[in-house]
Amino acid sequence: MKNEPQIMPNCFIGCETPFNESETVLFGAPFDGTVTFRPGSRFAPAQMRPDSYGLESYSPYQDVDLEDAKIHDAGDLDLPFGNTAHALGAINEFVSHIVQANKRPLMIGGEHLVTLPALQAVYEKFPDICLIHFDAHTDLRMDYLGEKLSHATVMRRIWERLGDDRMFQFGIRSGLREEFIWARTHTHLYPFNLDKLEGSVPLFKDRPLYVTVDLDVLDPAVFPGTGTPEPGGVSFQELLHALCALRGLHIVGADVVELSPHYDNSGVSTAVACKVVRELALTMSTFS
Amino acid sequence: MKNEPQIMPNCFIGCETPFNESETVLFGAPFDGTVTFRPGSRFAPAQMRPDSYGLESYSPYQDVDLEDAKIHDAGDLDLPFGNTAHALGAINEFVSHIVQANKRPLMIGGEHLVTLPALQAVYEKFPDICLIHFDAHTDLRMDYLGEKLSHATVMRRIWERLGDDRMFQFGIRSGLREEFIWARTHTHLYPFNLDKLEGSVPLFKDRPLYVTVDLDVLDPAVFPGTGTPEPGGVSFQELLHALCALRGLHIVGADVVELSPHYDNSGVSTAVACKVVRELALTMSTFS
Amino acid sequence: MKNEPQIMPNCFIGCETPFNESETVLFGAPFDGTVTFRPGSRFAPAQMRPDSYGLESYSPYQDVDLEDAKIHDAGDLDLPFGNTAHALGAINEFVSHIVQANKRPLMIGGEHLVTLPALQAVYEKFPDICLIHFDAHTDLRMDYLGEKLSHATVMRRIWERLGDDRMFQFGIRSGLREEFIWARTHTHLYPFNLDKLEGSVPLFKDRPLYVTVDLDVLDPAVFPGTGTPEPGGVSFQELLHALCALRGLHIVGADVVELSPHYDNSGVSTAVACKVVRELALTMSTFS
Amino acid sequence: MKNEPQIMPNCFIGCETPFNESETVLFGAPFDGTVTFRPGSRFAPAQMRPDSYGLESYSPYQDVDLEDAKIHDAGDLDLPFGNTAHALGAINEFVSHIVQANKRPLMIGGEHLVTLPALQAVYEKFPDICLIHFDAHTDLRMDYLGEKLSHATVMRRIWERLGDDRMFQFGIRSGLREEFIWARTHTHLYPFNLDKLEGSVPLFKDRPLYVTVDLDVLDPAVFPGTGTPEPGGVSFQELLHALCALRGLHIVGADVVELSPHYDNSGVSTAVACKVVRELALTMSTFS
Amino acid sequence: MKNEPQIMPNCFIGCETPFNESETVLFGAPFDGTVTFRPGSRFAPAQMRPDSYGLESYSPYQDVDLEDAKIHDAGDLDLPFGNTAHALGAINEFVSHIVQANKRPLMIGGEHLVTLPALQAVYEKFPDICLIHFDAHTDLRMDYLGEKLSHATVMRRIWERLGDDRMFQFGIRSGLREEFIWARTHTHLYPFNLDKLEGSVPLFKDRPLYVTVDLDVLDPAVFPGTGTPEPGGVSFQELLHALCALRGLHIVGADVVELSPHYDNSGVSTAVACKVVRELALTMSTFS
Amino acid sequence: MKNEPQIMPNCFIGCETPFNESETVLFGAPFDGTVTFRPGSRFAPAQMRPDSYGLESYSPYQDVDLEDAKIHDAGDLDLPFGNTAHALGAINEFVSHIVQANKRPLMIGGEHLVTLPALQAVYEKFPDICLIHFDAHTDLRMDYLGEKLSHATVMRRIWERLGDDRMFQFGIRSGLREEFIWARTHTHLYPFNLDKLEGSVPLFKDRPLYVTVDLDVLDPAVFPGTGTPEPGGVSFQELLHALCALRGLHIVGADVVELSPHYDNSGVSTAVACKVVRELALTMSTFS
Repeated sequence: MKNEPQIMPNCFIGCETPFNESETVLFGAPFDGTVTFRPGSRFAPAQMRPDSYGLESYSPYQDVDLEDAKIHDAGDLDLPFGNTAHALGAINEFVSHIVQANKRPLMIGGEHLVTLPALQAVYEKFPDICLIHFDAHTDLRMDYLGEKLSHATVMRRIWERLGDDRMFQFGIRSGLREEFIWARTHTHLYPFNLDKLEGSVPLFKDRPLYVTVDLDVLDPAVFPGTGTPEPGGVSFQELLHALCALRGLHIVGADVVELSPHYDNSGVSTAVACKVVRELALTMSTFS
Repeated sequence: MKNEPQIMPNCFIGCETPFNESETVLFGAPFDGTVTFRPGSRFAPAQMRPDSYGLESYSPYQDVDLEDAKIHDAGDLDLPFGNTAHALGAINEFVSHIVQANKRPLMIGGEHLVTLPALQAVYEKFPDICLIHFDAHTDLRMDYLGEKLSHATVMRRIWERLGDDRMFQFGIRSGLREEFIWARTHTHLYPFNLDKLEGSVPLFKDRPLYVTVDLDVLDPAVFPGTGTPEPGGVSFQELLHALCALRGLHIVGADVVELSPHYDNSGVSTAVACKVVRELALTMSTFS
Repeated sequence: MKNEPQIMPNCFIGCETPFNESETVLFGAPFDGTVTFRPGSRFAPAQMRPDSYGLESYSPYQDVDLEDAKIHDAGDLDLPFGNTAHALGAINEFVSHIVQANKRPLMIGGEHLVTLPALQAVYEKFPDICLIHFDAHTDLRMDYLGEKLSHATVMRRIWERLGDDRMFQFGIRSGLREEFIWARTHTHLYPFNLDKLEGSVPLFKDRPLYVTVDLDVLDPAVFPGTGTPEPGGVSFQELLHALCALRGLHIVGADVVELSPHYDNSGVSTAVACKVVRELALTMSTFS
Repeated sequence: MKNEPQIMPNCFIGCETPFNESETVLFGAPFDGTVTFRPGSRFAPAQMRPDSYGLESYSPYQDVDLEDAKIHDAGDLDLPFGNTAHALGAINEFVSHIVQANKRPLMIGGEHLVTLPALQAVYEKFPDICLIHFDAHTDLRMDYLGEKLSHATVMRRIWERLGDDRMFQFGIRSGLREEFIWARTHTHLYPFNLDKLEGSVPLFKDRPLYVTVDLDVLDPAVFPGTGTPEPGGVSFQELLHALCALRGLHIVGADVVELSPHYDNSGVSTAVACKVVRELALTMSTFS
Repeated sequence: MKNEPQIMPNCFIGCETPFNESETVLFGAPFDGTVTFRPGSRFAPAQMRPDSYGLESYSPYQDVDLEDAKIHDAGDLDLPFGNTAHALGAINEFVSHIVQANKRPLMIGGEHLVTLPALQAVYEKFPDICLIHFDAHTDLRMDYLGEKLSHATVMRRIWERLGDDRMFQFGIRSGLREEFIWARTHTHLYPFNLDKLEGSVPLFKDRPLYVTVDLDVLDPAVFPGTGTPEPGGVSFQELLHALCALRGLHIVGADVVELSPHYDNSGVSTAVACKVVRELALTMSTFS
Repeated sequence: MKNEPQIMPNCFIGCETPFNESETVLFGAPFDGTVTFRPGSRFAPAQMRPDSYGLESYSPYQDVDLEDAKIHDAGDLDLPFGNTAHALGAINEFVSHIVQANKRPLMIGGEHLVTLPALQAVYEKFPDICLIHFDAHTDLRMDYLGEKLSHATVMRRIWERLGDDRMFQFGIRSGLREEFIWARTHTHLYPFNLDKLEGSVPLFKDRPLYVTVDLDVLDPAVFPGTGTPEPGGVSFQELLHALCALRGLHIVGADVVELSPHYDNSGVSTAVACKVVRELALTMSTFS
């Protein structure tokens, strides 16, 4: 046989940089153990890789190509089942590994609780980190039916680490009345849309940032494949513009969570998740 | 066994008020016998109850909670099959029962024809009632293939009771040319969107109102699970704002119709229907 | 209003007997927290109730009607999320309540782990109980990724209570080699089909029996809506005949588990689960 | 342009014979107005035509080709909506037209009630006709919630015309206890499977026959796309062998009903219905 | 039989004009052989015809009815499989036939490559034709994996015929960087939305125009049933307004491509495609 | 970080042997360019890998584990689009590479035409090879609409290489009359089921064999996710027993083709395909 066989890559499109040469490390955290309504986000990263080839690696919005952004796709973590603490531990350990290698983690969930161990690992290196949080839900409960670790409490747990005035929440349109009241004095919660993001960018300058995108911030028309669809969300373009508004900022870690692909057999939700990952990865690569 | 077993409620979220203490009575009218394209709205109310728990009972838009709105969920009517007149009779009888108890009916369809007997029952008590009608379709035919009772004729039948200038139609974007012409002299028909609603509110002050929401007024992107999807509809936010614009008015009855859940396996249409019911129920509760 | 409104029942078809007059108590245990492949069995009981009306309450196979079998449908347990121990505790408590009232529990899962607390409660009253187990999978692992409580270990946990020679496993066609070897000395494992059941019936005479039906014992052609579809299973008729072969035996508790309805949009899997519940409930009612 | 454009046929595969030269006339009766559980069989004939080209017109079972069987596809009747009597009248009229032209009608439903007017039209010409009935359900109720014309009563209405001992029912596995009892003295009801068909063939010799195939006689594994799936049915091969056993008999009319294609997105149910139509049409063509 | 049987038409709604009396000829070109991601647009025209009856033939946007627009539906071409050149040849031949009869072709794809032979046929008669192109993708590659004829190269092939400054591309949001660069000097490419269309209309006056609508210009929320869904597209209303802005222009040919109906089981994408065809057909009919 | 992160494998379950140490090389050939009805088998191998983990690597039927069978998963070939000859050439080249390394190829399609280049490569080394062919369709046409290379002609092309009496076809139930006639004198065609396989095994002794499994040999109830579902096929158990009957024979190459996963959203067809691959791979490993 003259030439090596041509084998299809099994990484996310345009993310073929070896770990050592990479600046951003993409990986999957297929955990959905605390979901209260519809589970299935465990299947997200495995579904996204092949479907990412339905897109292009080039973004005409940012005029950059993923192939130039030095991204390594490390695959999916093999997480223990039915034991939340163990799964979170494994995520924390892997993100620490990335951060210690002076690279930026870009995690694909899984449910939103996976943000907690990832952020904690990044926080070890960047203790003055701020959180930019896109979501339909407050996620600020003290506990959920007695459980402290839940996708409905994750932002409250993160607040316990970061404290007041370090969390910026955009697009929120669902929660308990108590959560909305509590947020008034502890976080920057901008409900219903992303209109306040652009004006907030000056606050983010020169600070290390972690960006977490719960994809259910999007309207379910755009993104039906998710665990708790909440009508009345933002359009893809609004989210895209928000992500692009963060260009040049010091994003030291990020994640994209809550795609539950089996609830959208059209494949559109997976395509949306892939394009959000592409644009977020490119935005992250613009800090210098 | 020390404590009573904890059993999940089988009512719509936040609607656990007993009938006697309630101000609004929610119930299902699972009838779809005259649908011309895709049937299946008979399955709507049974699907909505469990899925309503994917939402919260609290609305951050109106800053009210369903649990405070004194709503009783009476379940679904057991309607005879294949005989339109009998089914409409049973609905009329049940709505009369609610109205005579000085409560507000909030009916979940079923197809749009169920509005006719409900409105007729409310009309008995409030003969000066006006109708606010959200829909993609005119529903103003004199008959449909010879049939007088049809989801395509329901507004014409209602007009025969109410007469000119008592019906306000919003979002209409489909019908026969004749229907649009007829509407010019008999109803207030505002086509394509809901932009004229806010300006119409002063007309509604101090009058008893019946609000009927055919969910296909929404764009099929937002609400694919319906019998006759008609592209070019309004967004969820537009409908939400319209409903909120009715706060404080004297709504004496209402319905939400035409969810056909089997046509949207993602569950999003059901979530949309549930959220419309929540916001409409809360709007109704603001009259004093 | 002359007559009371006719409201549709929200119980399983033919199970309207009040608790006190009932002999069998049907209830749902919507827990799927340890599922390793595809979750979603939490939605089973809520989906089965309305769909049960697509069947008849009369069984021509057994010539009995559910309406004669004195069954009470108690609804679904409201189980805490993300905490396996608490959920199992609530199930155990509720089954104890049923058993102490001298009634037979008939539980609808949920995943297979729910059998553990139910059987433990029944065992308190009937310590010489035997288990009849229909399944595609051995479920005999000592642990699963370190976890003791898992749908993959449930039969091992039950064995720890019952001991050797008390468990009869039918239809098994998937597992680790170690599980098959272990079963040789500890349980009666009849692989691949149900052919050995009829011959085993004499062994079951005069003993209290618990019957657990993991619906994935059926071929996925018959029952696609399940968490771990395993090709090569039995037909509906084979399972039906097996259940009928148990008529007259002393079944003191039973369950039907692992319907994951969102994976079968045709609704057929739900219909199958309902019919299995009907036939099992009728079989249970034949002991005297 | 040299040659005529090649346009795809829009008839059922192999059924391009003009009406005048045809022996069998195939047509659709898209009516589903009395269905009690899941409607949608109105969409069956329009879905079957294009999908029939996924099969071949040649049957290796019977070694005959549809193209040799002189079949005309007349298209679908345009039936009035929401008025059962009118729809049945139009079917009756069209079948009379076929019968008077000395051709055999082969009707595609729609729900099972369409058999009534078709059989009545055939009966006018062949008053000693017998009915061969494949079904999961008895369809022998006197009325359904007070309605005389229903898919649940159609066989009782036909009996009122034919009288005792003229109806042969195969595969029945669902109904009220009363229906099974009534059938003992009025029809030949062979429950659960088709085993008794072959032995009955001598009774059918030299008599005009009408064959009605309610496709839900098949197991829902084979045929999920139907209104009331009833687990425990026959395999495709069993139905095929039964149809082939009727070769050479004097079948003067037939129908295939109760495909509801939207409930099976895999398209398999439609393929099954097409193949049943092919084999039944070929069987009908063997009388001489 | 007194009156002729009433048979449903099998053409697109309102397109029953005979060929000779028609001004526009609608037909299907069910070819999808070069699709790189998800095939299936071959099924589009056969699905659209019956579903078009879910709409009305009257457009309230344009206040015209399809029944007045003299449209003939010629059915679908029977195209050879697996041989791109032969399929394109057959399309070219059929469009030439239409053009030579002084009628306007309105083609339903199939994939986008079908535009090439259609435009070439129209170009023979109107060599100064301009192309108005709605799409998510540039389609301007020189080749795709070495192939010249591909849905990813179709606009480049057309440019080779038309030359610079004759192609106007709207809504483009995906492609290689090289394609975007190349377009700057060869086509009028307006990315991301349709905002520039209205201002371009004066350029189109008095010129023969071909309009090609790749439906993936729409956001996948609106139109999920397509081969390469690309998030961030335009709304239905934006496309509708763009089409209406072309009223009165000299459109001599048009097509609507890339509906892949099996990827949207809700049927909404098919409804959208039908409504785009209706509005485009009506727009075409306004030139005088 | 103490221990290496645990990353999930992206190969087929139990196929982690390095190429050099392997005896069997599994790979995907995602080509579906000549499919005449429903395309999509290009998506099969990428879907099967993650879903294979829903099964176990151990087979209780054969009492062997994939982990002991020395299988290397080489990934999927990156095949050129829209050019059949190029795609077949790449497959041929890769299989030659495997065969020259003295390993057995086990290919996952794609459509059935991929068997042609694979078999040709194996034939170079084993010119006396026989073909064992499981299928619903004859695949023996001389050409299909003029095309020589098609999934409907693949067995005829192979016959041109192998000649008479070297092809054994099982389960065939669809084709043209001419194909069935032609097969009588050129191949061993056993229609409808696999009953004749076991008796044929002595003929296969001591000969190199290629086994091709077109999964549509299975009944569509078992395997709906395929391009041309043909009712009346064999059960999973029948196919399983047939594969096990081949244990110990000298299978030098094999493939499993025609899974089109998007047509079965339940995932069952993918599970079936994975289990067939597992059992076939284990059977292949038994020759010594």
